[in-house]
Amino acid sequence: MPGDMTGIGPEITAKLFSSRVLHDVARVTVVGDARVLELGCRDAGVELERTVYSSVDEIDWNRDSIPIVDLGNIDPTTLPRGVVSAQSGRLTGETLQYMVGLALAGKLDGVCFAPLNKAALHRGGWNYSDEHQMFREWCGHTGFFGEMNVIREFATFRVTSHVSLRSALDLITTDRIMAAIELADRTLRSMGTPDPRIAVAALNPHAGENGLFGDEEQQVIRPALEKMASQGVHCIGPVPADTVFVRAKKGEFDAVVTMYHDQGQIATKLLGFDRGVTVTAGLATVFATPAHGTAFDIVGQGKADPGALEQAVRLAARLAASKKSSPTSAGAR
Amino acid sequence: MPGDMTGIGPEITAKLFSSRVLHDVARVTVVGDARVLELGCRDAGVELERTVYSSVDEIDWNRDSIPIVDLGNIDPTTLPRGVVSAQSGRLTGETLQYMVGLALAGKLDGVCFAPLNKAALHRGGWNYSDEHQMFREWCGHTGFFGEMNVIREFATFRVTSHVSLRSALDLITTDRIMAAIELADRTLRSMGTPDPRIAVAALNPHAGENGLFGDEEQQVIRPALEKMASQGVHCIGPVPADTVFVRAKKGEFDAVVTMYHDQGQIATKLLGFDRGVTVTAGLATVFATPAHGTAFDIVGQGKADPGALEQAVRLAARLAASKKSSPTSAGAR
Repeated sequence: MPGDMTGIGPEITAKLFSSRVLHDVARVTVVGDARVLELGCRDAGVELERTVYSSVDEIDWNRDSIPIVDLGNIDPTTLPRGVVSAQSGRLTGETLQYMVGLALAGKLDGVCFAPLNKAALHRGGWNYSDEHQMFREWCGHTGFFGEMNVIREFATFRVTSHVSLRSALDLITTDRIMAAIELADRTLRSMGTPDPRIAVAALNPHAGENGLFGDEEQQVIRPALEKMASQGVHCIGPVPADTVFVRAKKGEFDAVVTMYHDQGQIATKLLGFDRGVTVTAGLATVFATPAHGTAFDIVGQGKADPGALEQAVRLAARLAASKKSSPTSAGAR
Repeated sequence: MPGDMTGIGPEITAKLFSSRVLHDVARVTVVGDARVLELGCRDAGVELERTVYSSVDEIDWNRDSIPIVDLGNIDPTTLPRGVVSAQSGRLTGETLQYMVGLALAGKLDGVCFAPLNKAALHRGGWNYSDEHQMFREWCGHTGFFGEMNVIREFATFRVTSHVSLRSALDLITTDRIMAAIELADRTLRSMGTPDPRIAVAALNPHAGENGLFGDEEQQVIRPALEKMASQGVHCIGPVPADTVFVRAKKGEFDAVVTMYHDQGQIATKLLGFDRGVTVTAGLATVFATPAHGTAFDIVGQGKADPGALEQAVRLAARLAASKKSSPTSAGAR
């Protein structure tokens, strides 16, 4: 899905397909409007041999050309570039909703999308605190799930996310931490890590300094670690938040479970988050997207780098393949 | 002050004096036990020409040798190395307390110390949440003050520090934020930055996303910024915590005022905190120390790097010189 067309999504989509690196990764189709992909080809300065289909069922996977399922819903001449557009946000959401329908019907194994614009989605009427909540609703998911941020060195999972810090403190429970550890373990295994080493960040400074600066480490976090460890999960902590990322960066952990949004994001943004991938982990359908945004400042200049989108497709393919090979492992626990 | 002698403090002190780089920085004396400095010379494998005095008043600053005010209070043969020692912590505190007495009597312009061990201090009977609180009490200070962390790219100041995250939320008020901004501005000017650019971090994810994820940005932080800006302070914010350090790293800000301990420490530890300097800012006496710790794992091996201690002495000298040239600027506001 080429993302919100006001941004660099169409350009990096065209560049990615043009590079043909996805050949041996998965059977990949563009879903969206054929005119948006055309726009992306112009932005990128590339030609793409493509075949337009009206539904995913019609795709002839033996053909060498890029398949595009043309929804005919987005006319680029009616929308601006490089700015937030409520109309574009609405249409972006509609395209994603169509794709989730295909996924739930078993016709797609994963949904990968170029950058959305959160403000545009919101103004376009998709009133969710983030796109992950939107996907959750479309998938009819009820249990724990969440945003995973994958950078070169490690992945992060969150116990709480897009809520005030004060609300986050109230949401941090032993059950939620266990669910986040379990999700991290399950997702990393799906990604091909056999025995994931999962660090769990502390909440308070110096991990509470033995109760001097807060007791959540002892009362809430440690019990979660003990229960998950007793189930065979390789989890370590609570590790002081200001050292856990230094250790993860050195390769000591495969994942860090963070207590609140900024705890992980301060670290990953300093470590090259923008080259990373964001996954909605724990839903029946696989969702992956580049961590960077619509980059309005460079739209239409041919400068946008498709690297993170490529990583997103590769990761989605790995997760989807693992889901197909053991269909009960996802969402079952 | 050579720090807690169980650690690398004596070694880096000896190395620093031996390198003679402090010559044009300040008139520097060692205060402590002459036998500890001797131990440091052995650890470092250096010879130091030194003159032992029994009080700071006796020092002949025209002599080329290193002056040491020998308190005769720490016999290294009675203390362990590389482990936490309550006895060593107690004596370390006593030496510092003696130095603060000298400073308050106008006989020292600044106190610079090699790494302490917080646990040793605590077990040695110095029951403070950190050494900054101990210094505050010794200095009889009542207003706002706080830990400043100086790394190559920028400095951080904290609105709250060694308290639980839940307590921190209750302590974050407009007045405290204003005090922290003022302290940052004043301290950076003392360090030689003429018009410091001070970013103030937000508390909630995405700086509260216009009130969707918390209203402290609008109710508490923004009023502080407006009042300080109206007083001519160059302050910017509230900046989302997960981007403020990326921007500061690029050189956009001289300081970041953080709302809670880990917010700043996650970032600075990833950016080379251990090579940085910690300052107790806002007290009548200047205190500076390397940000790294006692490094028990490499004690006595001659491997310890005196670089951060050198930076601490240089910074203490700058701050002390500024204080001498405008004695009312410190603690007056």
